[in-house]
Amino acid sequence: MSALENLTVRLAKRPIGMPDASTWTIAREPAPTAGDGQVLVKVDAISLDPAMRGWLNEGKSYIDPVGVGDVMRALGVGQVIESNSPAVQVGDWVSGGFGAQSYAAVAAKDVARINIKAAPPERWLGDLGMSGMTAYFGILEVGALKDGEVVVVSAAAGAVGALVGQIAKIKGCTVVGIAGGADKRRYVVETLGFDACIDYKNEDVAAKLKEYCPKGLDVYFDNVGGEILEACLGRLKRGARIVICGAISGYNDFGNIKGPRNYLNLLVNRARMEGFVVFDYAPRYGEAVKQLLTWMGEGKIKSREQVEVGLERFPDALTMLFTGANTGKLVLKVG
Amino acid sequence: MSALENLTVRLAKRPIGMPDASTWTIAREPAPTAGDGQVLVKVDAISLDPAMRGWLNEGKSYIDPVGVGDVMRALGVGQVIESNSPAVQVGDWVSGGFGAQSYAAVAAKDVARINIKAAPPERWLGDLGMSGMTAYFGILEVGALKDGEVVVVSAAAGAVGALVGQIAKIKGCTVVGIAGGADKRRYVVETLGFDACIDYKNEDVAAKLKEYCPKGLDVYFDNVGGEILEACLGRLKRGARIVICGAISGYNDFGNIKGPRNYLNLLVNRARMEGFVVFDYAPRYGEAVKQLLTWMGEGKIKSREQVEVGLERFPDALTMLFTGANTGKLVLKVG
Repeated sequence: MSALENLTVRLAKRPIGMPDASTWTIAREPAPTAGDGQVLVKVDAISLDPAMRGWLNEGKSYIDPVGVGDVMRALGVGQVIESNSPAVQVGDWVSGGFGAQSYAAVAAKDVARINIKAAPPERWLGDLGMSGMTAYFGILEVGALKDGEVVVVSAAAGAVGALVGQIAKIKGCTVVGIAGGADKRRYVVETLGFDACIDYKNEDVAAKLKEYCPKGLDVYFDNVGGEILEACLGRLKRGARIVICGAISGYNDFGNIKGPRNYLNLLVNRARMEGFVVFDYAPRYGEAVKQLLTWMGEGKIKSREQVEVGLERFPDALTMLFTGANTGKLVLKVG
Repeated sequence: MSALENLTVRLAKRPIGMPDASTWTIAREPAPTAGDGQVLVKVDAISLDPAMRGWLNEGKSYIDPVGVGDVMRALGVGQVIESNSPAVQVGDWVSGGFGAQSYAAVAAKDVARINIKAAPPERWLGDLGMSGMTAYFGILEVGALKDGEVVVVSAAAGAVGALVGQIAKIKGCTVVGIAGGADKRRYVVETLGFDACIDYKNEDVAAKLKEYCPKGLDVYFDNVGGEILEACLGRLKRGARIVICGAISGYNDFGNIKGPRNYLNLLVNRARMEGFVVFDYAPRYGEAVKQLLTWMGEGKIKSREQVEVGLERFPDALTMLFTGANTGKLVLKVG
């Protein structure tokens, strides 16, 4: 047994609706040690993702649910402090599925080395991590983006949406974001360089879409579902693509998710709506990271992380994703 | 002016809900004559299509609505009795957009010659007409059907559904139909050769889908929308395709169409839902007709038309499409 103390966030019970303090057990336990072929990682930061909400529900999905009593699943970055594998050295910085805890023992083959000289650790959870991979393959592969198209992105100030829009701008597209509140709208237009942004909390989304996309949209990248999805279905150009990345508006009230009533617009406009799971693109992550680092080096992508500190803040920090309290990639430093 | 009398069905007023007798004006008028470059066609039969319901609604769609006072739009077959074009001879059998009337004057370039020795006139409105083209391009192109997949088709005893399933059987697929009533179910399995058919009026569609597609479905060809679409969304295999051909369950109550609440299954299963309009494939109709005639010659496709007689029966015959009263392609002989 190691003498290290491991702070852990375990699932105490499956939440109904929004998770809260009672969903979790936060405890101090002895840290694990590295077994055969394993490394022990001192976790520096973990990624907070809307997808986490789905992992708390019972039943089959694209991934097994987190078991009650288990450490919460989370992607993380950290430094190797013990290694039983020749492939990874003590002192290496790595990313992997470390969970919401301060120390993780994982198979060496399941970690990826990260270059913290190229970008700070938290960025490897954001634009160079799962959020970045989701944006990159979602818009370019699933969305089949073509130069000069009209692109609409919801949750535009969030980790995925911000990068989707910036990639589309690099591709010469007209890009309209949708985000909640004047501050986010300003950030999306002034900092990220979108052509326009609709503040869904204070503006009529359908009317503004008509104004900003008078001829309709080619690609809608959907992070939210609900009424915003319907508004975008009402503005499809012929041959449009809707990328279903998520539906954060419904994650905490899954039983009452409404389907898009106007989905027959897909028919009239010869359009499609397609879902994807970023893990399917894992063999191509390297290609995406290389391209994104190049664009970052050219000043074409502005990355932003909102860093919360202290693993014990996990319950509150997760909730921020669903109340729209974050701008950019939400990361929790273990502290 | 010709001395011929033309029986016409004109749109009297836009229906709310199901069209009825008051929707139409049936009149006897002098027949038109062929103008420059036109032919005069004695209409033999017209096609009755669920899409007609959409053409009665005001507002932009993939095609202009039928104007109030206009002859109802309908595809037809008939014989040329006057020709002002060297391209078409008197006596030729042709198909085209003749409308719900007994004589039509149309541009010679807008008619297609049909071979009534290869197949009777009404079949050129069914398996060799728009229904056939819809089935052929819908399942093979939009559905991207691969040999040996699991295919589910709704309105399986209808014109499009019956052919979709038979094409999928030719491609070595496992094919499950969904149709209303024991007679249709028997027809779909025993005559058309589907592997199974679910009687949605008397069986639990979701439970039966689970039984017949234990590993899920690869392609769902949707003619109906509503709860059946949701049931199929609940059985998607990874990479599944839903072809949105229509939503007959909602056409007469468009304002209350419900979206598929479980559309997020598209995400989990990396699946897509795609609409199409058959007219986009017009340049390739010849290729489809040739292939279908070959399959018919080999006995691999069983065509069935339900022929109603008398143009004055148009209002009642159209309603049959929405009450499930027809099996096979519904055709109205002008009589």
